[in-house]
Amino acid sequence: MTPNTARRKETSRRAILTAAFDLSQEVEYAKLSIEGIAARAGVGKQTIYRWWPSKGAVLFDAFLMLSEGAEGEQPALPDTGDLEADLTAVLRATVAELNDPRYEQPMRALATEIAHDPELAAAYAERLDGPLKEAKRQRLRSAQRAGQLAEGLDLDVAVDLIWGPVLNRWLQRGAPLTTEYTDLVVTTALNGLRSRATTETAG
Amino acid sequence: MTPNTARRKETSRRAILTAAFDLSQEVEYAKLSIEGIAARAGVGKQTIYRWWPSKGAVLFDAFLMLSEGAEGEQPALPDTGDLEADLTAVLRATVAELNDPRYEQPMRALATEIAHDPELAAAYAERLDGPLKEAKRQRLRSAQRAGQLAEGLDLDVAVDLIWGPVLNRWLQRGAPLTTEYTDLVVTTALNGLRSRATTETAG
Repeated sequence: MTPNTARRKETSRRAILTAAFDLSQEVEYAKLSIEGIAARAGVGKQTIYRWWPSKGAVLFDAFLMLSEGAEGEQPALPDTGDLEADLTAVLRATVAELNDPRYEQPMRALATEIAHDPELAAAYAERLDGPLKEAKRQRLRSAQRAGQLAEGLDLDVAVDLIWGPVLNRWLQRGAPLTTEYTDLVVTTALNGLRSRATTETAG
Repeated sequence: MTPNTARRKETSRRAILTAAFDLSQEVEYAKLSIEGIAARAGVGKQTIYRWWPSKGAVLFDAFLMLSEGAEGEQPALPDTGDLEADLTAVLRATVAELNDPRYEQPMRALATEIAHDPELAAAYAERLDGPLKEAKRQRLRSAQRAGQLAEGLDLDVAVDLIWGPVLNRWLQRGAPLTTEYTDLVVTTALNGLRSRATTETAG
């Protein structure tokens, strides 16, 4: 491949990914087609079929391209020493992003593709969600070292207890996703459901 | 409508719902069509279009028909007095159902329709999930009255902390959904993430 061909190929790739992301904001996802993406990107649909097996795979790469911005940087959660405050802030930012009209439809589309496509789910778990999940575990590990979290705590389960309810409520639309809700999820997950009376009076 | 017409209409309706449920087990959901359902049910596709606005709405009614079995019965969770044991048993049954090949694909299909369709989500929240959620709250309320759960606990948040991680892991395929996992979710949600050392030594 000559440098010019490589550059043209990269330009087409980015045009396709941008078109896929933009269209997934505008069009009901079931009606988003490879033809539509090709038309918006100004390429032939065969170009897309040659590079990607499905529209879900195109959308996934569009998300990867967006997350490339901070190249080489590992994501990290704030660590002020106050775990509850840090988690509350992070989840409030998550709510803002999930409710942002620019991202909501594309993220719903990606989530539902993952639900039906094990291969895409594996790629998502490794390349997009993996680094984020590690950042969440890191923050909890730091709190655990500081004696703030239970010693035997399973950090994967802990991450799921904090983020699972929020993502599930958002995706299933059980009720509006508000910061009042996520604040309460953080407090309740940290404290647990049990009455503390037993522990306290037994001390 | 004569009794015969009503009976024929009900027979067609059931044939359509059964066909929709069966096909959603067999066919990739994106490829499931009203035409396909009509052909399987032996009705004209106009009949389906007349009664339902989308294939998601047909699938939803198929789930409603399946849940009609226990007519008039309110769902209830077991209540042996041992909350942790009861929740563990219920979640183990949920895992078995979510991993059951007869239900997995149709339930994924319904979940993704809900993610994209606010009206369907509202119908789901009211008619299918509503009675189940009330049964979950009831069980927690009974434990709260027995002094086993914290007094000020928000029962909706508590339900989400127990079931949210499980549904989210299943739908997003983050990792296999096992009973080891759900057992740990129950224990961790009840106890909370915090170290109890502070409380205990302070007593």
